[in-house]
Amino acid sequence: MPYVNIKVTNEGVTSEQKAELIAGVTDLLEKVLNKNPATTFVVIDEVETDNWGIAGEQVTLLRERAKE
Amino acid sequence: MPYVNIKVTNEGVTSEQKAELIAGVTDLLEKVLNKNPATTFVVIDEVETDNWGIAGEQVTLLRERAKE
Amino acid sequence: MPYVNIKVTNEGVTSEQKAELIAGVTDLLEKVLNKNPATTFVVIDEVETDNWGIAGEQVTLLRERAKE
Amino acid sequence: MPYVNIKVTNEGVTSEQKAELIAGVTDLLEKVLNKNPATTFVVIDEVETDNWGIAGEQVTLLRERAKE
Amino acid sequence: MPYVNIKVTNEGVTSEQKAELIAGVTDLLEKVLNKNPATTFVVIDEVETDNWGIAGEQVTLLRERAKE
Amino acid sequence: MPYVNIKVTNEGVTSEQKAELIAGVTDLLEKVLNKNPATTFVVIDEVETDNWGIAGEQVTLLRERAKE
Repeated sequence: MPYVNIKVTNEGVTSEQKAELIAGVTDLLEKVLNKNPATTFVVIDEVETDNWGIAGEQVTLLRERAKE
Repeated sequence: MPYVNIKVTNEGVTSEQKAELIAGVTDLLEKVLNKNPATTFVVIDEVETDNWGIAGEQVTLLRERAKE
Repeated sequence: MPYVNIKVTNEGVTSEQKAELIAGVTDLLEKVLNKNPATTFVVIDEVETDNWGIAGEQVTLLRERAKE
Repeated sequence: MPYVNIKVTNEGVTSEQKAELIAGVTDLLEKVLNKNPATTFVVIDEVETDNWGIAGEQVTLLRERAKE
Repeated sequence: MPYVNIKVTNEGVTSEQKAELIAGVTDLLEKVLNKNPATTFVVIDEVETDNWGIAGEQVTLLRERAKE
Repeated sequence: MPYVNIKVTNEGVTSEQKAELIAGVTDLLEKVLNKNPATTFVVIDEVETDNWGIAGEQVTLLRERAKE
């Protein structure tokens, strides 16, 4: 009965990509730990780039700088 | 000083239902563990059905199938 | 398919008390939101008092002061 | 490689304040534990006042009462 | 810069299995969302069976019943 | 009433360092967002290096390699 939480920045993840993440993580837990898919939960959180910091800065700034 | 996080799918939970969950969990922690309600936090997260997976599939698909 | 995480300080919670918390939260979600107990997860984390802060101080200190 | 999650109520936190929180937490972890800022993540969650409970009540109610 | 948290019951997960989970999730995020492995974090929590509830009961009880 | 969760690897964090993190984060939230320290919670999780992955590998391996 695993519970998996995936946090990524909110930058256009499609429903199809979410379905792939859910299927992929569920398969991995069955393959590696023999966990039953029926009781495997996967929750995806999409976090605004203003709300995610790395290296002391908002991801929003990193993205702007990368475009320059 | 307990901290409780409740994650449910975002399917029309009303403000009254949220109030019931908050009161109910706070009472339970006082009754079972004698925790002071004044420092009991409850945070409810409502997760889109596209972002919640069970049995390797998005809840969105389970809901559509249930309607058929 | 709710997921509930309860964090309390690690101060002698018994297995029976954990069972009461699990049963109580699961019942509450069924009563308030009609959630199926079969797919309701409850995870309890017991946190050392040195690792929990409130009002800028470790709970360990609060407990020592309360004994004086 | 610390991971820090800050949850606050959704009551008008500005992008500048988020940047201050991210910079401040990252600095603190470098100062206290010598953690490399390059691999320090900070994620801020803004929670609706209806979804945050304290003392068994929604923060929304506490705010209304404080205005009276 | 994804952050993934995997919670499983504490029932003898080996270091090799943890390494497989970490590698598998990191690969999946690169494949599906083109996320850079260098800034992908995976944190595995092993939860005591007394502290994990499903269907209103501790997993400890489910395991005992399964042995009978 | 903020809630802050700090996850670091379990590599000898002292009680004094935990106290500094708790005080520092609580001060930061008061300074930046005017949050009341009395209802600011900080929870520190120490994660085994085998259970923390970055760049697809366990931190345990990164530490061993760094010693060579």
